[in-house]
Amino acid sequence: MDAITRIERALNAALDRAGGPGAPPRLAAAMRHAVFPRGARIRPRLCLAVAAACGDDHPAVTDAAAAAIELLHCASLVHDDLPCFDDADTRRGRPSVHRAFSQALAVLAGDALIVAAFETLTVGTSRAPRRLPALARTIARAVGMPAGIAAGQAWESEPSVDLAAYQRAKTGALFAAATVAGAAAAGVQPEPWRTLGERLGEAYQVADDIGDVLAGEAEMGKPIGRDSALGRPNAALQYGVPGAMRHLEALAAAAADSIPPCPGAAELRNLTLSEARRLLPKDMSLAAA
Amino acid sequence: MDAITRIERALNAALDRAGGPGAPPRLAAAMRHAVFPRGARIRPRLCLAVAAACGDDHPAVTDAAAAAIELLHCASLVHDDLPCFDDADTRRGRPSVHRAFSQALAVLAGDALIVAAFETLTVGTSRAPRRLPALARTIARAVGMPAGIAAGQAWESEPSVDLAAYQRAKTGALFAAATVAGAAAAGVQPEPWRTLGERLGEAYQVADDIGDVLAGEAEMGKPIGRDSALGRPNAALQYGVPGAMRHLEALAAAAADSIPPCPGAAELRNLTLSEARRLLPKDMSLAAA
Repeated sequence: MDAITRIERALNAALDRAGGPGAPPRLAAAMRHAVFPRGARIRPRLCLAVAAACGDDHPAVTDAAAAAIELLHCASLVHDDLPCFDDADTRRGRPSVHRAFSQALAVLAGDALIVAAFETLTVGTSRAPRRLPALARTIARAVGMPAGIAAGQAWESEPSVDLAAYQRAKTGALFAAATVAGAAAAGVQPEPWRTLGERLGEAYQVADDIGDVLAGEAEMGKPIGRDSALGRPNAALQYGVPGAMRHLEALAAAAADSIPPCPGAAELRNLTLSEARRLLPKDMSLAAA
Repeated sequence: MDAITRIERALNAALDRAGGPGAPPRLAAAMRHAVFPRGARIRPRLCLAVAAACGDDHPAVTDAAAAAIELLHCASLVHDDLPCFDDADTRRGRPSVHRAFSQALAVLAGDALIVAAFETLTVGTSRAPRRLPALARTIARAVGMPAGIAAGQAWESEPSVDLAAYQRAKTGALFAAATVAGAAAAGVQPEPWRTLGERLGEAYQVADDIGDVLAGEAEMGKPIGRDSALGRPNAALQYGVPGAMRHLEALAAAAADSIPPCPGAAELRNLTLSEARRLLPKDMSLAAA
């Protein structure tokens, strides 16, 4: 079964459980709206790829870890779109959850997705319960305080911002959790896998920065995107687009070089480099091809 | 060490971890504001009392379970106070979290408290990891979907409400989790302990209904409180205050009678009955004494 099929099946199982007998129907629908139709599923695919490279001896555990990570990613998007944060009307071309339902249901959908992530871990590890503690701890750290997604988002409310901590927490933490959890799901010593996730998280951020600047150019005829308007740091504004591209390539190479010895190391190395290329806006990867 | 000391120590440890090196200071402060100074701590005290009755052979596990339950209770209050729900300016006589900080930080404080609850469970069970799965599953079910606190809150956004499901989810679920988790923390078969929590949760709801009606009487000279204004069901409006008091007594008796055989059953029975009496507004327990 391919990775996307495994991920969608695991996410569907989690949402079927959440929307089970007695569930308030609108909240169940809001949770589904937050998770489907799918985006790129970058983080859970990364989790599965690492687990596969390490032998993936308990696929149900891996699927649960991957689904938990994606549920938490979706939860963070739902709350991030709220009027008190980015006030985004759309997400993936459709109304955001608070626009399609209500602010109350968007807050609750995020809450319930966070809880569903941890419940998914307990269900998925029921036949390998020894793998639960490391997975739950890894994933909790990546989304909570002091250095997970919630911390990253909170830096936007601080009078002075530690930029490196901000990006590490808001984007990097869940990428790092994806590789660490992938290894933990496969029963392998997980910490050596952290660098791979961290470098890919940075690469993702740089690609996002490039996309933001190019979108600004296309729309306004000058290299100023949403980040600039919101006063956020942006690598492509700081180093220029060509400089940011070189930085992204260096990060991808560092990610590939960090892969610890494992049965599937060579394949994972190739996948890492090709996925990093796919992060770029479509026009650019065509131009580069 | 008495129960409250254990609970406050465990909550402090969880918040110290959340506010650790690199944490954004305002979110760390908002989380603390949500948890301290303490309210009655009814749910974690119930968890500790059940564990004590069952032998409490791993106090660190019990403390983690109790703290996780209280962190989740506090998280639900923070989100419940938001403008899109109850729009409450105060909580326990102080500004609510969104009034003291901001809506953004209140959303994030709730999120981070939910995550901290699960992290607390993993840390507290590190020397008894086999107890983690049942605890994490019990507590996740009590706060998520389809029948936990988030589900209970969501019934307020549905066009038609299943009242029994609403109250079971919004209030009962975390009381039931407190007794079930107390038993699981002590390594005892947990499900027989569910009825105790459910009956005490119902008793708590009835006491709250009585308090709401009496507050309305004191303020407006007629038995109509906030529940009535918000169109919420209220047992004291439905049966009258004396009828609701008889119902509360019957629930307390049913709770006490449901206690499964265990070393501390007699003591727990007395505690259950005296705590149920303490649920009533202060004037009434004096009048009844």
